[in-house]
Parts: sequence; structure tokens; C-alpha cells
Amino acid sequence: MAKLKVTVWNEYRHEREDAKVAEIYPAGIHQAIGGYLGQDSTLEVRTATLDEPEHGLTDEVLAETDVLIWWGHVAHHEVKDEIVQKVRDRVLDGMGLIVLHSAHASKIFEALLGTHTGQLKWREAGEKERLWVVEPNHPIAAGLGEYIEIAHEEMYGERFEIPAPDELVFISWFEGGEVFRSGCCYRRGKGKLFYFRPGHESFPTYHHPDVIKVISNAVRWAAPVAGSKVTYGRVEPLEALKVTEHV
Amino acid sequence: MAKLKVTVWNEYRHEREDAKVAEIYPAGIHQAIGGYLGQDSTLEVRTATLDEPEHGLTDEVLAETDVLIWWGHVAHHEVKDEIVQKVRDRVLDGMGLIVLHSAHASKIFEALLGTHTGQLKWREAGEKERLWVVEPNHPIAAGLGEYIEIAHEEMYGERFEIPAPDELVFISWFEGGEVFRSGCCYRRGKGKLFYFRPGHESFPTYHHPDVIKVISNAVRWAAPVAGSKVTYGRVEPLEALKVTEHV
Amino acid sequence: MAKLKVTVWNEYRHEREDAKVAEIYPAGIHQAIGGYLGQDSTLEVRTATLDEPEHGLTDEVLAETDVLIWWGHVAHHEVKDEIVQKVRDRVLDGMGLIVLHSAHASKIFEALLGTHTGQLKWREAGEKERLWVVEPNHPIAAGLGEYIEIAHEEMYGERFEIPAPDELVFISWFEGGEVFRSGCCYRRGKGKLFYFRPGHESFPTYHHPDVIKVISNAVRWAAPVAGSKVTYGRVEPLEALKVTEHV
Amino acid sequence: MAKLKVTVWNEYRHEREDAKVAEIYPAGIHQAIGGYLGQDSTLEVRTATLDEPEHGLTDEVLAETDVLIWWGHVAHHEVKDEIVQKVRDRVLDGMGLIVLHSAHASKIFEALLGTHTGQLKWREAGEKERLWVVEPNHPIAAGLGEYIEIAHEEMYGERFEIPAPDELVFISWFEGGEVFRSGCCYRRGKGKLFYFRPGHESFPTYHHPDVIKVISNAVRWAAPVAGSKVTYGRVEPLEALKVTEHV
Repeated sequence: MAKLKVTVWNEYRHEREDAKVAEIYPAGIHQAIGGYLGQDSTLEVRTATLDEPEHGLTDEVLAETDVLIWWGHVAHHEVKDEIVQKVRDRVLDGMGLIVLHSAHASKIFEALLGTHTGQLKWREAGEKERLWVVEPNHPIAAGLGEYIEIAHEEMYGERFEIPAPDELVFISWFEGGEVFRSGCCYRRGKGKLFYFRPGHESFPTYHHPDVIKVISNAVRWAAPVAGSKVTYGRVEPLEALKVTEHV
Repeated sequence: MAKLKVTVWNEYRHEREDAKVAEIYPAGIHQAIGGYLGQDSTLEVRTATLDEPEHGLTDEVLAETDVLIWWGHVAHHEVKDEIVQKVRDRVLDGMGLIVLHSAHASKIFEALLGTHTGQLKWREAGEKERLWVVEPNHPIAAGLGEYIEIAHEEMYGERFEIPAPDELVFISWFEGGEVFRSGCCYRRGKGKLFYFRPGHESFPTYHHPDVIKVISNAVRWAAPVAGSKVTYGRVEPLEALKVTEHV
Repeated sequence: MAKLKVTVWNEYRHEREDAKVAEIYPAGIHQAIGGYLGQDSTLEVRTATLDEPEHGLTDEVLAETDVLIWWGHVAHHEVKDEIVQKVRDRVLDGMGLIVLHSAHASKIFEALLGTHTGQLKWREAGEKERLWVVEPNHPIAAGLGEYIEIAHEEMYGERFEIPAPDELVFISWFEGGEVFRSGCCYRRGKGKLFYFRPGHESFPTYHHPDVIKVISNAVRWAAPVAGSKVTYGRVEPLEALKVTEHV
Repeated sequence: MAKLKVTVWNEYRHEREDAKVAEIYPAGIHQAIGGYLGQDSTLEVRTATLDEPEHGLTDEVLAETDVLIWWGHVAHHEVKDEIVQKVRDRVLDGMGLIVLHSAHASKIFEALLGTHTGQLKWREAGEKERLWVVEPNHPIAAGLGEYIEIAHEEMYGERFEIPAPDELVFISWFEGGEVFRSGCCYRRGKGKLFYFRPGHESFPTYHHPDVIKVISNAVRWAAPVAGSKVTYGRVEPLEALKVTEHV
């Protein structure tokens, strides 16, 4: 069976500019996530980053990507609009997209959902987050307990300006008193999107086994599926019309 | 009670360039729709068109519009991106938006939904369309029979590349053998959107009482509602944290 | 304008058997809620309780009820199945239904949703609950702040075995570490249902202004609306068939 | 890999009482469907019928069924309530359920969805049905063309009194002028349901390759998935409470 091709995209700035972050993710968040996923022999994992030519997302790379994982934070505005459009077209054409944490404010997430997805409450206090599974039979929750507990995380709180998710898998509880829709599934065009909240750069969240399990489950969930044929444009009638072309 | 402020926007090209269309809509589709809505004394109706400065959608007009109705077809690309962004922001801030017929391919509809909403099947053969009500208790269907029949219309057929509607009110049957999701409700940000399929420029569809009834119902459905308070951005914790700001 | 007819149904056992509860709700939870709603001159409010004949829900009462509010806890099994079926039929025929707190496990809620709605986590520790508004433009949230805070409540925690709500308005945060989908909208048949979590009998929750505001908003949201005509059963074709009745 | 266990349940009355039906399905609809599915070596298929003891749905059979297919028409009322409850519990516990054609009015479908699912329009005129795929990337549509055409079928028309499907895969066009939501997905409890419209007993619909393909796809879609752990009932707090158990 052909391997599933995963590309982990990362802005890759914090890790090169902040010693504290570099300590947690010496080779970058993309390499951390990619390394864990790469232990699965059914996945073929590559990475791409903002400062590579075309942000590492050439037509060839996109064409060979089944599922794209996206992490960004301080440099959303540096992502070129033409690349965003290419990624959007690929998602609508069937590529899966997993949007992590602060990439809620990325151009690609906003372009695909249409709302001001950057709008939410936040606080960097290193508090406790507990992600409760609300749909225990969802494939993205496979193998988890009833919740995921993360000792220290940035807080994101509602109201989060997103379209109501097609499927809501996780809801977060925060020590400081907020809640958040933390695992949101969307189907758009032929593609699937999953937004997963945790993963601030200054915490070792992507070394948490349950977080990796969710990302790994989401990769499989978001993978392209065989579907039916679809065409667009002008068509002839399938049934005889009583009218003729109107004059 | 304050009147509800409705702006009917129209590309207004066919009516000026095609004698056949001008015969049906001598003052333009916007004036036809606006005229019918204006008979309702609880509505305050104005119109705006593509070739006016700023497409007739100045900041003042947008600020004073509760519900915007949008018709376009051949000149979607002439609508300026900055106006599209202003309209999008107003919708996400609470203004209702009713997207008619060929405006499925408009920039504003695509920007708010995120998919290639221009993608569908079509045929101009003047065939019969029957729009079945699938949610008879939806306020947009109020006062209708079980279906709306239109003797001659352009056909739009599935697959229509839209996000699954939050509420699906109408499904069309076409004489030539196709079906279509013809009445689609979406909530985005604080705003509501309604897509309504019928209304090709070469047919007197907007003189059909049931079509006007649907548009009129949709205006009320899409009107801004009083909601709860909402703020975004950095917040202090509501509960005492065990951790202090991480170092 | 005709008044909206509201019936507040209560099991009415705790208040008669437990002095502590009677202190909070001397005339019963139904009278407390009914009293607050009755201050609104556009509502016509009556009450009904389990131990009345037919549980106070005669055909006449049901026929004259636009919105039914339901509170029950220890005596769900005493509600007669034929009354449950009548209530269900009325909801599917357009009557609104507001299901409060422990009525999640009522026969009527389970009959209308189809799942084991009694299944959830719970704890009676009098802890703090904070209900966050996740859809600030929903009419049920009108006039609220960003959240409702209740100093002491019973905890309900996920997983709650309900169908994914058509609209999710509130998510609760609990001091003990859990979350809950606390404001759930459903459309079923011609009727609308709203489940609202708070309201344990041993706390003065139904004296909380925001809780009453939500119930009041929900009454209006769930009120029957004018819809389209609908018929069922055998019908003649609307179009000529090429086949004749098969032999 | 363990085989997926499929049980095809059939009322099995028409085939034994009506020579015309017996000609099409000599061994019954269950054997026809079961025979086709049985050609897939990854499936283990058995059948069960109404007139067997316990309708062929003993605890053992249900416990060993991953996906149950259900066909019924004239004898819905003969299905014992206790069996319906057992099937419902199994679905909510994870067993898939595929409800075919006239089983829209079965006790099990109504019990799981909560509405009067028997309510729809119908006509037995052997007319043409065309099922359009509206979600071409749904696994249930895998391998199909843009639509399925059935030369002769009973007509079912909207309004169909169902909860809005979680995912709508097919919409039918009928020669006589109606439309119908013909492929409806629901998640309930840990289980998945798929309603598929075609299959009147007097037509060879279950010999149609595309119809079998859909049923086969639906079996895989509805199969139980590994999920997360879930428990219900009284729980201790996960966080220290400021209050003590209230007195």
C-alpha cells in the first residue's frame, strides 16, 4: 500500500530567535512533529518552512502532499498570497489540512473558513489545559482517555470566531476559567480540515504523547478518500425538455 | 419601531445592454426587487449598483444597511477587492447578506464561504424549475405552499461546491433531470447569509410572488439580532492560577 | 398581538419533601420560573405538575401551549408513556420545548432525541459554574455578558450522550475541572427544542437574573413560527410519466 | 485482519406472498443483498428475518454484528418492542445501522431519530429516479459516477420528517416532479446510521451494481471505530474545590 504523504509546515522563527524555545524544539516544531510521525512506517513525512523558496511549498511538493500540517504565529503576514491560494486550491481539491494552535490566525485558515479566525481570547500564563473528548467514537479521538491534560499551555478562550464546526471533537477547560472549542472538523470542497488548539512554542506540547496521537489520528482522518466523479460547467439535459432554447 | 434598512445591490449590466432583459427589468433587477420590498412599510429600501462610485457601497451606506441583497453575473471581477473586504467585515459584524442566483460566483460569496462557490453545472434552456420546501417550519418558507414552481429558468445542477449549509430550506427539481440545493442558510461571525438560487436575468423570476416572498422572508431572517457582549484579545484569568507567569 | 402561551411543567417532589429545597422554592420551581416569566406582559403563563391528573398535561392544555418548559429529576419513570407520546407529537407538530437541567434524563427528551440522554458525568459539590456564550449572535444569548456565572451548582460533565446540537450556544466551565455543552438547540419536526443545563433543586439558580433571561429568550426562540404548507401520503405525479402504473 | 460482520435483516413477507416479487428476489431481498456483499472476502455476512424466533436478532447475533442492514415495509408493527430496544442499544453502543427504503417507517429508525420518520410523500408508478451525489468526496459515494439512475422505482418525495442529516450524500430527482434526501448520515451515541432510499420490492433495485456499491460503501463507513475511553456517572473533582460538599 502506498504511504500517506505528510508535509509538516512551520514558520520556524521562534526556534531560531528564542533560546528558550530552541531548547524545547532544537530543530524546530516541524522536525519534532515530523520526527514523531515518521516513526510510523505507513507515513512518508517531509517538512517545509517559511524561509525556504516558495515557503517550501512548490507545486511539486503540494502535488505530492496528501496531508499538510501548518504551524505559524508571528509571521502570518509574510506568507505570500499566491502560495496561500495554491494551498487553498489543493485543499479544495482533496488535500487534508491540519491547522495547529496559533495558525488559527493564518491566512490559509481564514481563506478556507471565511471568518476572522484570528479572533479569540488569549493569555500566556503557562496554566493547565484539559481537553475533553466530546465525541468519543470519532476517529481523531481513537486511543485516548477521556481527556488530555497539558500541565502548562497558553490559554485560548471563547468566543472563537469560526463557523460552527461540522464535527466538534474536543472542548478545552482552562485553569483560569475559560473554555474553547479545541478540536474542530470541517469538510471544504473535496478536502478535510482539522483545527487542533494546543501547541504554544514555549511549552513542550508537541512532545506530549496524546497530542502526537491526535495529530497522527487527524492525518489519517484528513487523508484524501476515493470519491465519486464530479464535473462542472455547461451540460446537456438528461431528460427531454418541453421548451426549446428560449428566444 | 425603527425600520429595517435594506440595500439591493445589482451589477446592472444586462439590463442596459440587452433589450430582452431590459423589457423584463426596465429599471434593473435592483429596482424590481427593491420596488416589491418597498411596499412593506417596515422596510426602508435603497439600491446600489456596480458602476456607481465605490459600487454604491460607501462606508456610510454599509453602516446604514441591515441586510444587503446581491445580484451579479458577468462582472464579478470588476468588483473591487477593497469593497469586497468591507462588505465581508460588515457581514461578520452582523449585517445580513442575501446572495441571489449567479452571485454564487461573486467574490463576496466566495470570500465568506471559502470554497469555489462558482463551481456547479448549468444550462440556459428556459426549462421548468420546482423548488421544494424541505424545512416547512423555517421562517424563510413562511406562507409558501409545498413548492415554488417557475415555468422558465436557467438550470443549476449539483455538485455545487459549497460548505454543507447550516440549514437547507429548498431543493430544486429541474425538468432536464438535475437537482440543486437552492435555499442555503449560513451563520458567519455575527452575520447571517442566505443563498437563493432562482433569478436568471432573461426570465421574469423576480416578478414571481413566491420568489419575492422568499426574499422578503429572508430579509427578516437575516436581520441583525441583539446578542451578547463579545470581546477579543488578551485577558486576565478569572480564577487564581497555581502557576505564575512562566519564565 | 396574541400572547405567547407558556406552560411550566415540574415534577414538584423535592420542594414538598425536602425542607432545604422548599426554602429556596417555597411554591415549587415551576412557580418560581412561572412567576418571573409572568412579569412579561406578552406571555401567558400557566403551570402543570406530575401529581395532577394526566400530569396537568391534558389535551386542552397541550393544545393551548406554545412553549412547554420541563423540569424533572427523581420521578422520570412516573411520567406516563401516553403523556410522553402526546407531548412528543405536539413538539413535532410545532410546540416549543425547553428542557431544564436534570430533565436531560426525562422520557420526553430521550424520545425526541433518540440517544441515552441520561448519560453524563455529575457531582453534587456546590461548585462554581461559568457558562460561556460561544454564539454571541444567537437570540437565546441576547442581552447577556460574555458568560453567566453561578456560584454554586451541581456539575454535569462530558461525555453527554446527545446528538450533536444543531446549534451550540453555551459551554460550561466547572471549578472541578469539567466542561459541558450547556445550551443545545435542536429542530425536530415542526418544533424546536432547547436544552439548558443549570438548575439543581438545592441551589437558587432559577432566581439568577441571567438564567431567567436565557429561559425567557429561549421561550421566544422556541415559539411556533408560520411556515409553509405540508402534506404527506400518496400523491399524483406533477409531471407526465413515460411509464404507466407498473403491473 | 478480522472480517467485518454484517447482518442483513429483512421482513421477508412480500417475497413469500407475491409471485411478482418472488420472481425478482426468489430467496428474499436479504439473500440478494447478502449474496452480493458476501462476494467481498473481507465481510462475513449472515441474514435474519422477522418470522424467526426473536426476529433472528438474538443477543448473540446482535453481539456479533458490526453492521446491521434493515429492510421492512408491511409488518413494522410486528417487530417486538423489546427487540427494537436491544437494536437501539447496540447502535448507541457502536453497531452500524443501514436503513433501506420503506424501513424509513420502521420502529428502529423512528426510535433512533425521534421524529415521525414515516412521514413523506410516495407514489408507486414505476417511474425513473436519479440519485445525485452532492458530497462527491464522501466515502459512501466512492467509485460512483455523478449520479445513479434507476429506471423504475417507487417515488418518495419531500417533506420527509427527519432531523437534518449530519451529512447529506444523495438527493433524488423523480420523473414525476419530486425530490428527496436519499442518502442521510447520522451519528448517534457511538454508532452511525445511514438511510438509503431506493429499494421497492417490486423492482430489481438490489440487483443494480451502483445500489450494491453504495450499500457496500455504507457498511464500511458505518463499521465501529476505535474511539476514546468513556465513563458516566458520579465523579470526584479533578481540581481542588473552594467549596466543601454543601450541607
